[in-house]
Amino acid sequence: MPEQSPGSRPTLEAVAARAGVSRATASRVVNGGAGVRQPLVDKVLRAVDELGYVPNHAARTLVTRRTGAVAVIIAEPEIRIFSDPFFSQQIRGISKELTAHDTQLVLLLLEGPGDFGRIARYLAGGHVDGALAFSLHIDDPLPAIIRRSGTPTVYGGRPSWTSAPGDQGVPYVDADNRGGARAAVQYLRDLGRERIAHIAGPPDQTSSTDRLDGYRDVLLDADPSLITEGEFTVDSGARAMRELLDRRPDLDAVFAANDLMASGALRVLRERGISVPGEVALVGFDDMESIAEDTDPPLTTIRQDVEGQGRLMARLLLRGLDKDSAEARSPASVITPTTLVRRASA
Amino acid sequence: MPEQSPGSRPTLEAVAARAGVSRATASRVVNGGAGVRQPLVDKVLRAVDELGYVPNHAARTLVTRRTGAVAVIIAEPEIRIFSDPFFSQQIRGISKELTAHDTQLVLLLLEGPGDFGRIARYLAGGHVDGALAFSLHIDDPLPAIIRRSGTPTVYGGRPSWTSAPGDQGVPYVDADNRGGARAAVQYLRDLGRERIAHIAGPPDQTSSTDRLDGYRDVLLDADPSLITEGEFTVDSGARAMRELLDRRPDLDAVFAANDLMASGALRVLRERGISVPGEVALVGFDDMESIAEDTDPPLTTIRQDVEGQGRLMARLLLRGLDKDSAEARSPASVITPTTLVRRASA
Repeated sequence: MPEQSPGSRPTLEAVAARAGVSRATASRVVNGGAGVRQPLVDKVLRAVDELGYVPNHAARTLVTRRTGAVAVIIAEPEIRIFSDPFFSQQIRGISKELTAHDTQLVLLLLEGPGDFGRIARYLAGGHVDGALAFSLHIDDPLPAIIRRSGTPTVYGGRPSWTSAPGDQGVPYVDADNRGGARAAVQYLRDLGRERIAHIAGPPDQTSSTDRLDGYRDVLLDADPSLITEGEFTVDSGARAMRELLDRRPDLDAVFAANDLMASGALRVLRERGISVPGEVALVGFDDMESIAEDTDPPLTTIRQDVEGQGRLMARLLLRGLDKDSAEARSPASVITPTTLVRRASA
Repeated sequence: MPEQSPGSRPTLEAVAARAGVSRATASRVVNGGAGVRQPLVDKVLRAVDELGYVPNHAARTLVTRRTGAVAVIIAEPEIRIFSDPFFSQQIRGISKELTAHDTQLVLLLLEGPGDFGRIARYLAGGHVDGALAFSLHIDDPLPAIIRRSGTPTVYGGRPSWTSAPGDQGVPYVDADNRGGARAAVQYLRDLGRERIAHIAGPPDQTSSTDRLDGYRDVLLDADPSLITEGEFTVDSGARAMRELLDRRPDLDAVFAANDLMASGALRVLRERGISVPGEVALVGFDDMESIAEDTDPPLTTIRQDVEGQGRLMARLLLRGLDKDSAEARSPASVITPTTLVRRASA
């Protein structure tokens, strides 16, 4: 027996009137605030039921037992999360967006892949309303765990299975990895470089394979001896650079799939007395603060807005959770742009 | 009607026998595993009740609605947590210990003090079994929030109120800050230094005030012009060093209350062409990996085992939660030792 004209949603004022309490009291009840006597709480909740009042974000916490918390799950051991600034930047963006919506960020840490069972139990326990998951590897059990738990989730980085038909609906946020890589390699080509090597990331992550595809878009017939792999860390970039120089001492440019590996490569080039960019031009990826500008010479790189991607992930998730929102029905995936930043290394 | 002799605890085998299921099935049920049909689950849980089976850690999760998760709350903005290696080391220790006990680490991030209300709601929601809280400041509302939520908690660093009588019972883990500071300053005295300055930490944290007390233990009549304050960051250490040099150009030694501030001080000493340790000897505190050994010259410092403190905090909490444990009744506080590590800076 709604008291409104058809088509209009019942208001908090209507709830208050039906319950015979002030608007302030009704508001306190639906917002979960303390200090309201139980009989009044009961009256307000009865009015909510009878009117079919659709509560706003905060109200739903009370009425539908929302927790007001969102889990962040990074499929990497804790030690990488704290040593790679990529993760802290992404978390910073998520934290800002969740805080702006009064939602608690719950970072679930794990030591290794053996700990996913525990994550599964926590998710199944209903302790969060949704999840943000990133840095997936192809064989990670995480997506299956998340699907089974029924936790609404937005992914950071394109999940590998999204190339399969029928799975396109999974929401994710990613940078234009392939386009960025293409721009990096095209820039080196335009500088007149002819033997452009690539230090790729781990082959079980789409950010690596997409960037490798971008490299190949420009260098269709690149010699395989010009391509090697690292693990997105400084040391692995140094190791990869040594391999490349041993194999192809004639190389005149390197595109590294992230700035950490580029800085490791730079260290090796310096050790061997090879001038950058004179003899070898170097381009990274990420434009990571406290890395790209601080190397000597500073890195030419492909900028992606990592913090912004974190914010976007959180925003897509919150929209999906908030069924009132017009955008709620299909939280689309978002590909954010990348741009070339020219510094001294190329 | 227990089926054991008095004094012995009912075993899982007894539960299985009474329920008429295999031990493996009983184990799966009490460990919350999937794949057991509901009638069997019911039988096992009935047997648990009837026998008064005291489940082990994992089993209690099911039977007493434990969540199997522990919150870590750091009373600092997210940006500091990811930039100060102290926090990642402490979290690493906690993570290892919790993982060893199949307990999920839930890191609750906050942007600022205004976010404590949300933390309070999350704790009150029963989403964790206990909490580890560190880097408290004197006016933080966190301890009151924790107390009201009834969440068993172990603190990292001595809470400021523990000097008040009646509050001694609160469990915490801390380094011997005062003793370590005393050793640092005594070492500088023994080197023949006569005008030893101190860069203290923020005055609203006991780690700062305890270290300042240790400095004063040795230099009872230290001139106040030799003492200044930073905020435990590199930049604040640089600023403090400039202040000290402007005020007391005659100083011949500096004890900085942490390695980050010592590295900032070192930068300023180098900028001004003051030789270390020739003209000014410098001692830090923490022996932080990736800092103390990497400065030029490397830092003489006071080592504390930050990762070990994290492990200890987790261990004390888990013991307190596990009421079977002999040590459970009074999880005492623990003060871990500090040691002087001699390197080139003093």
